[in-house]
Amino acid sequence: MKNNNIRHFINTQDWSQPELRKMLRLADRLKQGGWNTSLQGKSIALLFLNPSMRTRTSFELGMQQLGGVAIVLQPGKDAWGIEFNPGTVMDGDAEEHIIEVAGVLSRYCDMISLRCFPGFEDWNYDRTDPVIKALAEHSSVPVVNMETIVHPCQELALMQTLYERLGEVQNKKFVVTWTWHPRPLNTAVANSAALISTKFGMDVTLLCPEPAYILDQQFIEAASDNAKASGGSFQVSHDIESAYSGADGVYAKSWGALPYYGKPEQEWELRKNYRHFIVDEQKMALTNNAVFSHCLPLRRNIKATDAVMDAPYCSAIDEAENRSHSQKAMLLTLMELNK
Amino acid sequence: MKNNNIRHFINTQDWSQPELRKMLRLADRLKQGGWNTSLQGKSIALLFLNPSMRTRTSFELGMQQLGGVAIVLQPGKDAWGIEFNPGTVMDGDAEEHIIEVAGVLSRYCDMISLRCFPGFEDWNYDRTDPVIKALAEHSSVPVVNMETIVHPCQELALMQTLYERLGEVQNKKFVVTWTWHPRPLNTAVANSAALISTKFGMDVTLLCPEPAYILDQQFIEAASDNAKASGGSFQVSHDIESAYSGADGVYAKSWGALPYYGKPEQEWELRKNYRHFIVDEQKMALTNNAVFSHCLPLRRNIKATDAVMDAPYCSAIDEAENRSHSQKAMLLTLMELNK
Amino acid sequence: MKNNNIRHFINTQDWSQPELRKMLRLADRLKQGGWNTSLQGKSIALLFLNPSMRTRTSFELGMQQLGGVAIVLQPGKDAWGIEFNPGTVMDGDAEEHIIEVAGVLSRYCDMISLRCFPGFEDWNYDRTDPVIKALAEHSSVPVVNMETIVHPCQELALMQTLYERLGEVQNKKFVVTWTWHPRPLNTAVANSAALISTKFGMDVTLLCPEPAYILDQQFIEAASDNAKASGGSFQVSHDIESAYSGADGVYAKSWGALPYYGKPEQEWELRKNYRHFIVDEQKMALTNNAVFSHCLPLRRNIKATDAVMDAPYCSAIDEAENRSHSQKAMLLTLMELNK
Repeated sequence: MKNNNIRHFINTQDWSQPELRKMLRLADRLKQGGWNTSLQGKSIALLFLNPSMRTRTSFELGMQQLGGVAIVLQPGKDAWGIEFNPGTVMDGDAEEHIIEVAGVLSRYCDMISLRCFPGFEDWNYDRTDPVIKALAEHSSVPVVNMETIVHPCQELALMQTLYERLGEVQNKKFVVTWTWHPRPLNTAVANSAALISTKFGMDVTLLCPEPAYILDQQFIEAASDNAKASGGSFQVSHDIESAYSGADGVYAKSWGALPYYGKPEQEWELRKNYRHFIVDEQKMALTNNAVFSHCLPLRRNIKATDAVMDAPYCSAIDEAENRSHSQKAMLLTLMELNK
Repeated sequence: MKNNNIRHFINTQDWSQPELRKMLRLADRLKQGGWNTSLQGKSIALLFLNPSMRTRTSFELGMQQLGGVAIVLQPGKDAWGIEFNPGTVMDGDAEEHIIEVAGVLSRYCDMISLRCFPGFEDWNYDRTDPVIKALAEHSSVPVVNMETIVHPCQELALMQTLYERLGEVQNKKFVVTWTWHPRPLNTAVANSAALISTKFGMDVTLLCPEPAYILDQQFIEAASDNAKASGGSFQVSHDIESAYSGADGVYAKSWGALPYYGKPEQEWELRKNYRHFIVDEQKMALTNNAVFSHCLPLRRNIKATDAVMDAPYCSAIDEAENRSHSQKAMLLTLMELNK
Repeated sequence: MKNNNIRHFINTQDWSQPELRKMLRLADRLKQGGWNTSLQGKSIALLFLNPSMRTRTSFELGMQQLGGVAIVLQPGKDAWGIEFNPGTVMDGDAEEHIIEVAGVLSRYCDMISLRCFPGFEDWNYDRTDPVIKALAEHSSVPVVNMETIVHPCQELALMQTLYERLGEVQNKKFVVTWTWHPRPLNTAVANSAALISTKFGMDVTLLCPEPAYILDQQFIEAASDNAKASGGSFQVSHDIESAYSGADGVYAKSWGALPYYGKPEQEWELRKNYRHFIVDEQKMALTNNAVFSHCLPLRRNIKATDAVMDAPYCSAIDEAENRSHSQKAMLLTLMELNK
């Protein structure tokens, strides 16, 4: 039942830049068009192990706008809890194994997508993205990542929006900035923003308060490699002023310091000193009339001020809209490539 | 993105009686017809902050019976918790603001509907219906109220059913009676029943055990004004016998005493004395062969006896069915008026 | 509103063997075909009082693959809690009665299905299957059992799969074996496997560790009666070796000992001795190259080993797939018979 030739959409690093650009061009065309029947007779299972508003709505509605059907399942809530590790003697909470979940859903549906945030206990485990890899290993249909330790669907929407706002993006200055938030969050969107902006040739600065907040080395290396291949650049900075200065794009996200992964009280002793990383008008004034965005959800006046969120240069709502168009393009591409 | 010219369906007081009658005539025609494609290519987001059976089923199914798509979201459960107040420093539980929720869902969907019961902490806050107003303020598509401090969709179904059962309703005697229930509930359906029955010219008596149970002054005044304009009448009574006597329609609902809002233990000291407000056959025998109804859910043998609920004069199931027809008429009207 | 002539799908004992075979033949044809519009304009309400993955996906997707609409409700979670007993003074947790739920959903939908596991408090109450019977009593549309104390939809899928794997099943040796699990589970699937395999003429052995694990007498008698009528046989065994020897099919399920119903700590004192009832390669080696299956969800290395689950003779995924095809056949049959 397993099929190692399946193209999944788990990580944009598995896709070439031209392939992704083709998806984005298709997304632009879909944005102009209305509903169609290109996925009639097709279905997708949407597995959510965490909350969602944009991802769920854009996938559930988008699939139907293409003539298909989406089934939303919440394992551990309305569906049975799932075990992801091979060989386990399953005497814990999980009632079934990903082998069966993947096998059964592959029979029912034409695609399976999963949102599963990391567990915030052991980064050495989570950093290998084991859960979605286990799903893909046992699935005989394409698997889509709706956010694990990366968020590739957000990457597509971000790039579609940057092209809309900036025109060409090659060597435009792009700042991915850590922001304040009351607790340590997933690094996925920060990892993804670094990956995709470097892949598309931007000059990227990862701005964070101190070395403890630098992203996992695998993403730092991948971003650097991407930049080398694309003619862009990638650097890490802890200096707000120089990072914002002259930026064409500012992308905000809060995340937890990996050396304190699973130890939120200890992480707080660092975190509490960096409330001033909030995105505000003073910082934005340093930029080259930069576009500002965030993946949402966003806590106002914590991560960014009301003034920034309500400014014309904020493209967060556009980016959320583009989730829908770019995901449709991705689903159509998956169905085409895996025919 | 905001559009102050949008017609929302938040409160029937925003709609003229002829406009509402037109909706009801359309509802009658839809009740005769089958599925159609009049909302093909249209979608609605259904946001539930509280449980629902009839509302959810009638909207989700009804939208599909018209060729459209409905997306059900439960912020705080499967979707992120929402902050509704402007200017807040969001360091509490809510992960995003209604500004973004409204903005994003306006991009995805053609309509947004919301159920959000009041908070039972501060009536001075809740009485202004701030949550759905915040949604409407930031939405660029029509907003539908699925119950806040009023329940306008229930009003439509109530009136469709009264016309079916009573023929013309002008100056028919209609009693909105408080009933026993083990705890203080939302006043929304009582407010709504008073508003719509007076708007359609009925002679309306609001029956409740004592002055503490009188509805908020804004609804008492609106009902009185409605009655003046429509040639009906509106009065408050605490006397069961005279209220039921000669009634053509009895509408039951339990609600909490507003002076004790947020203080259920204190409210209990009043409440416990009024178990006899249950609707039973003895009370119904005082009426003019009245039709009896309730919005449901209803606790049997608490709010009304089995004998009343199972009697041919009980139209609660009809009214629940009419939720579907009248809501379709309302959605079609909204889409037509906001073209 | 009640209609005693409705054919429901609550228990396969209400259906003749030829009727069920006809459904299975239709299921085979549906398995070959694609999506169609045979249930266009039809809808089903799916009420889940317990978690589900296969049942929910196969019903929700299957209904749409036939052109219809499925509405998923979770009473007590996203919908109101339900009272099922007649005459109750409803001052407990439930906000509405099955009379109203059945009445209202009968107006909205063309079919109503329910999953409601027994309460694990009083088997004398649960053994009469009171909840789904109350739903059927008050429904004016066909009712479908998605698992109560029997699981007739699973029975259809099991038989479709056995025919696929074994060809004719008459007098094939079929073992329904109890397996280890950390806590006492519902007997429904075991009851159902015994009922349907005897109904189709198989030589059936119910294997369980000791007399306390024998199923309720009503199912033992029904299975014996079925066997007599079909030319099959039915026996109970506590001996693993003789039960597995020469078997053509092995069906695993764990369940609780009824004499200890609602007393899991006492039941544990028995249960803990029977970990060796796990299905493993040694036991399967005793069989006549038997097909092995389980309804899923299954705890690996608890109920069955990885080796058994991953073997070509394991048809659990096929059976899960056949849930979809056989349920479609059943829904089409219900709509046809209740025209």
